[in-house]
Amino acid sequence: MGEPADVYDPNCPSRQIADHATSRWGTLVLAKLVRGTMRFGELRKAVAGVSEKMLAQTLQALERDGLVRREVHPVIPPRVDYSLTPLGTQIAERVKGLFTWIEDNLPNLVAAQEAYDARRAENV
Amino acid sequence: MGEPADVYDPNCPSRQIADHATSRWGTLVLAKLVRGTMRFGELRKAVAGVSEKMLAQTLQALERDGLVRREVHPVIPPRVDYSLTPLGTQIAERVKGLFTWIEDNLPNLVAAQEAYDARRAENV
Repeated sequence: MGEPADVYDPNCPSRQIADHATSRWGTLVLAKLVRGTMRFGELRKAVAGVSEKMLAQTLQALERDGLVRREVHPVIPPRVDYSLTPLGTQIAERVKGLFTWIEDNLPNLVAAQEAYDARRAENV
Repeated sequence: MGEPADVYDPNCPSRQIADHATSRWGTLVLAKLVRGTMRFGELRKAVAGVSEKMLAQTLQALERDGLVRREVHPVIPPRVDYSLTPLGTQIAERVKGLFTWIEDNLPNLVAAQEAYDARRAENV
């Protein structure tokens, strides 16, 4: 690569990877896999609201980016395990840190929303 | 709040805030504001590809969540400045850390994509 990486450049491959890693389902999948290997069905249950198709697409994009490892076990019925690669672990810990921060600070964030809505209501 | 915060629960307010903070434009706006106050037009230029409407919606959601401060200066023509609140600074530094990690590791990530595509091509 001649140019330095820049997520603000729509033509830089880093932007596409950032989109995968910060997508709604991408973030939730990465943060969930920090705990360890999971099967497709387990992930689907853990990430409430995701469709089978969206989960498969999300996992495939993360696998292509080298963040998630897909392992098919030759058993009957077939078993497919998903886990984080070493690269994936590094990014997933950052995503999880973001989520933990939001959860830990939720009372302040909700208070801000309520104050905003109250100011809006006054100005109507 | 009776229940603990859980970004995996679609009904928890933390999920909505996570969606704002990890949206494509939300992430790029937060990370850009880490450097300091910016005007609307400056932000629009800095976040290439965002429409005026999407940027306004993104900033409004982040303002309501207490992450971004909007300040209107009574001058002619009106000047509107956007900056991070103390809460916003904390989350924006995490988002920026995620982007910096992607940029720093881009050669490895692109190599993974190329290896994936090569495996796929072999199997066709």
